[in-house]
Amino acid sequence: MRMYDIIEKKKHGEELCRDEIYEMIRLYTEGSIPDYQMSALMMAIYFRGMSATETSFLTDAMATSGDTVDLSALGDRTVDKHSTGGVGDKTTLVVAPIVAAAGGTVAKMSGRGLGHTGGTVDKLESFPGFRTSLSPEEFSDQVKKCGLAVIGQSKDLAPADKKLYALRDVTATVDSIPLIASSIMSKKLAAGTRSIVLDVKCGLGAFMNTPEKARALAEAMVGIGKSRGRQTAAIISNMDIPLGRAVGNSLEVCEAIDVLQGGGPDDLREVALTLASLMLELSLKLDGDEARALALDTLESGRAFEKFCTWIELQGGDASYARDRSKFGKAKYTRELSAEKDGYLASCNAERIGIAAMKLGAGRETKESVIDPRAGIIILKKPGDKVRAGEPVALLMTDTEDKLDGALATAAEAIEISDTPVTDTTLIYEIIR
Amino acid sequence: MRMYDIIEKKKHGEELCRDEIYEMIRLYTEGSIPDYQMSALMMAIYFRGMSATETSFLTDAMATSGDTVDLSALGDRTVDKHSTGGVGDKTTLVVAPIVAAAGGTVAKMSGRGLGHTGGTVDKLESFPGFRTSLSPEEFSDQVKKCGLAVIGQSKDLAPADKKLYALRDVTATVDSIPLIASSIMSKKLAAGTRSIVLDVKCGLGAFMNTPEKARALAEAMVGIGKSRGRQTAAIISNMDIPLGRAVGNSLEVCEAIDVLQGGGPDDLREVALTLASLMLELSLKLDGDEARALALDTLESGRAFEKFCTWIELQGGDASYARDRSKFGKAKYTRELSAEKDGYLASCNAERIGIAAMKLGAGRETKESVIDPRAGIIILKKPGDKVRAGEPVALLMTDTEDKLDGALATAAEAIEISDTPVTDTTLIYEIIR
Repeated sequence: MRMYDIIEKKKHGEELCRDEIYEMIRLYTEGSIPDYQMSALMMAIYFRGMSATETSFLTDAMATSGDTVDLSALGDRTVDKHSTGGVGDKTTLVVAPIVAAAGGTVAKMSGRGLGHTGGTVDKLESFPGFRTSLSPEEFSDQVKKCGLAVIGQSKDLAPADKKLYALRDVTATVDSIPLIASSIMSKKLAAGTRSIVLDVKCGLGAFMNTPEKARALAEAMVGIGKSRGRQTAAIISNMDIPLGRAVGNSLEVCEAIDVLQGGGPDDLREVALTLASLMLELSLKLDGDEARALALDTLESGRAFEKFCTWIELQGGDASYARDRSKFGKAKYTRELSAEKDGYLASCNAERIGIAAMKLGAGRETKESVIDPRAGIIILKKPGDKVRAGEPVALLMTDTEDKLDGALATAAEAIEISDTPVTDTTLIYEIIR
Repeated sequence: MRMYDIIEKKKHGEELCRDEIYEMIRLYTEGSIPDYQMSALMMAIYFRGMSATETSFLTDAMATSGDTVDLSALGDRTVDKHSTGGVGDKTTLVVAPIVAAAGGTVAKMSGRGLGHTGGTVDKLESFPGFRTSLSPEEFSDQVKKCGLAVIGQSKDLAPADKKLYALRDVTATVDSIPLIASSIMSKKLAAGTRSIVLDVKCGLGAFMNTPEKARALAEAMVGIGKSRGRQTAAIISNMDIPLGRAVGNSLEVCEAIDVLQGGGPDDLREVALTLASLMLELSLKLDGDEARALALDTLESGRAFEKFCTWIELQGGDASYARDRSKFGKAKYTRELSAEKDGYLASCNAERIGIAAMKLGAGRETKESVIDPRAGIIILKKPGDKVRAGEPVALLMTDTEDKLDGALATAAEAIEISDTPVTDTTLIYEIIR
């Protein structure tokens, strides 16, 4: 196998075969294929695409390029959930305890936030003492005990993807559906659950900015999962505006607890129930209606909230914070973002809000940034709401006063006010099974 | 300027601006842009192309990335000739003395052969003592004295092209018209002549295998030359079969001398006269008919041959070899390639013949290979000729006996014999001014 021939083949739009793909990923991971050849191939793939078969091989080759997690001892109900990244997306905190309380087995690795999107691991660390890094034995023990554990992603999982992603990131070859799909799914396959549910975010705050692109990605990922023997499904959900009203780590934890206690914003509750139902459908082999009824009952009965508290405690966190949310405390400084005129809120751009929250300290500008768990934004008005000039539409919070001005300017860019009422936007575009 | 943004821009088919191109080439040449970004850009250019303006900037940026030759002291009749590479292409040996004897100024750098194509510098070194490396002063002195010098390419000419070409060569991004055109023309611009005549080879033994592709390359190069203030023209000539009958260094020198002495094969003579006329047209500002008449008279009067002998002598070579060609000697071993059946020779594939000659020792498989100046092939039958089974169609020559079998097998692949006579093929497809 010569890498040159593989580039040439793909350049002319031909399909790469199984052996070529596995061998190439093996050689690239060990450093025998130079970056300059791989980046040329990535660009050729950007233009020529990859067939479903090629994408499946590529994903598996990356998934098996390092350690893989063996969850077989945990039974056949293991299920993972992955979001392509959004603003205010705290669904894992709601979904995982619903599914575990209803009998699914959630053994999950999560990421940290970067740029304008948040990460579940950062949110969980709002609980004092919460350990996001467990040994394989601790992880397995906890899943056996309560059906639920969430830890940070292992460094040795899918090293080929890690190396390839870093290269794509600096060579403008990120935005290719087969490459995005294989990157995400390689980590999901390596993480070892039998079922996988994907939440593909779509809109202004998401990487996929149209339902068509989101559908293409969702279909590619579901196809990969199924081709590798995993039960896989996806939803496509709106990310034009933040999900729920809270953006920022402990703020989002509190909102997730609201939902687990029967309250919280409708959009968050609905997306969480949809995802939880889908996870139960796959992992417990229920039909859609049964799964939905079970998810709803588990949430409304309070069993999901109890599971949440047990989970936090088992993983070393102080669960008393969940029962008394005032313990999380408030950021030192709050600033109001006010409506500039009378009218109806027409837009609350998720990306702008995400960047504003990051500037407040809720997210990371670089991998080295330190998170301020109490920093963030509370959205008071959502699209469709009537507003009056001067009325606050959002609250910005931070412990560092001099971050307020810059964040406020960015948040202001998110807001559009129109003279006529706007109609509701779609929350969930599609479910792909 | 961020390289990432340049890749992204080109990926989306946008035009790069002047500053982006010059800055990128400067940074790449000094090593500040990594190969993996440049190869991604090259692949994006393969798919998206470059406008004439972009290609002109790119070429000039590469031409000025290192030393440039200043020929202004030699007057305004300096003219260069470049072939895109062929088999049996010894035209420079005929054309250069015609043009110099007719009053043009030929100050030329030439390459060495690699793979199945030959190089003028290797051919000239068949003359004992011939020096292909002169100091700038020696070079200039000789051009002043006899209007003609040909040396090997300076290492410091267009270093950006050298680096970029090496990268393209291993990343399957060679076959892009704007990249080929800019690579060739950057060296021609840096070499400093006022006029440039290009011989774009087209066919089985050439990189451009159709007249359409050859025309696109020729037009791109002529466009670049003109846009950078050089008088530029191109011919597109056939390379389905070798030019002339001799392939191999001293064999080709002898055939060139045949033409200079009024004989030689028609095809070689015609291509040489066409190129020489074009060079005289540009450098002496003649019209096409005047230039052709002058080239013909210079050849037929013997002035071109006298110029050839003076040139070889001035550059240290033993010109007595030109007057007594037997001095070049014969290779130790000769093998006949015979016709397999009665019929008409239908094809004599230039690439196969080139590779067979290389295997005999006439060319280089790698940059380190050593040339055997007397090795090569004499083609006895050309397409259209009647042949009888067992009759020799070519002679293979080498000093190394064990190279004969492999070369013979390759040469045999070049030959096709048909039952019906074949019609003549086009020799010169087009002239682009």
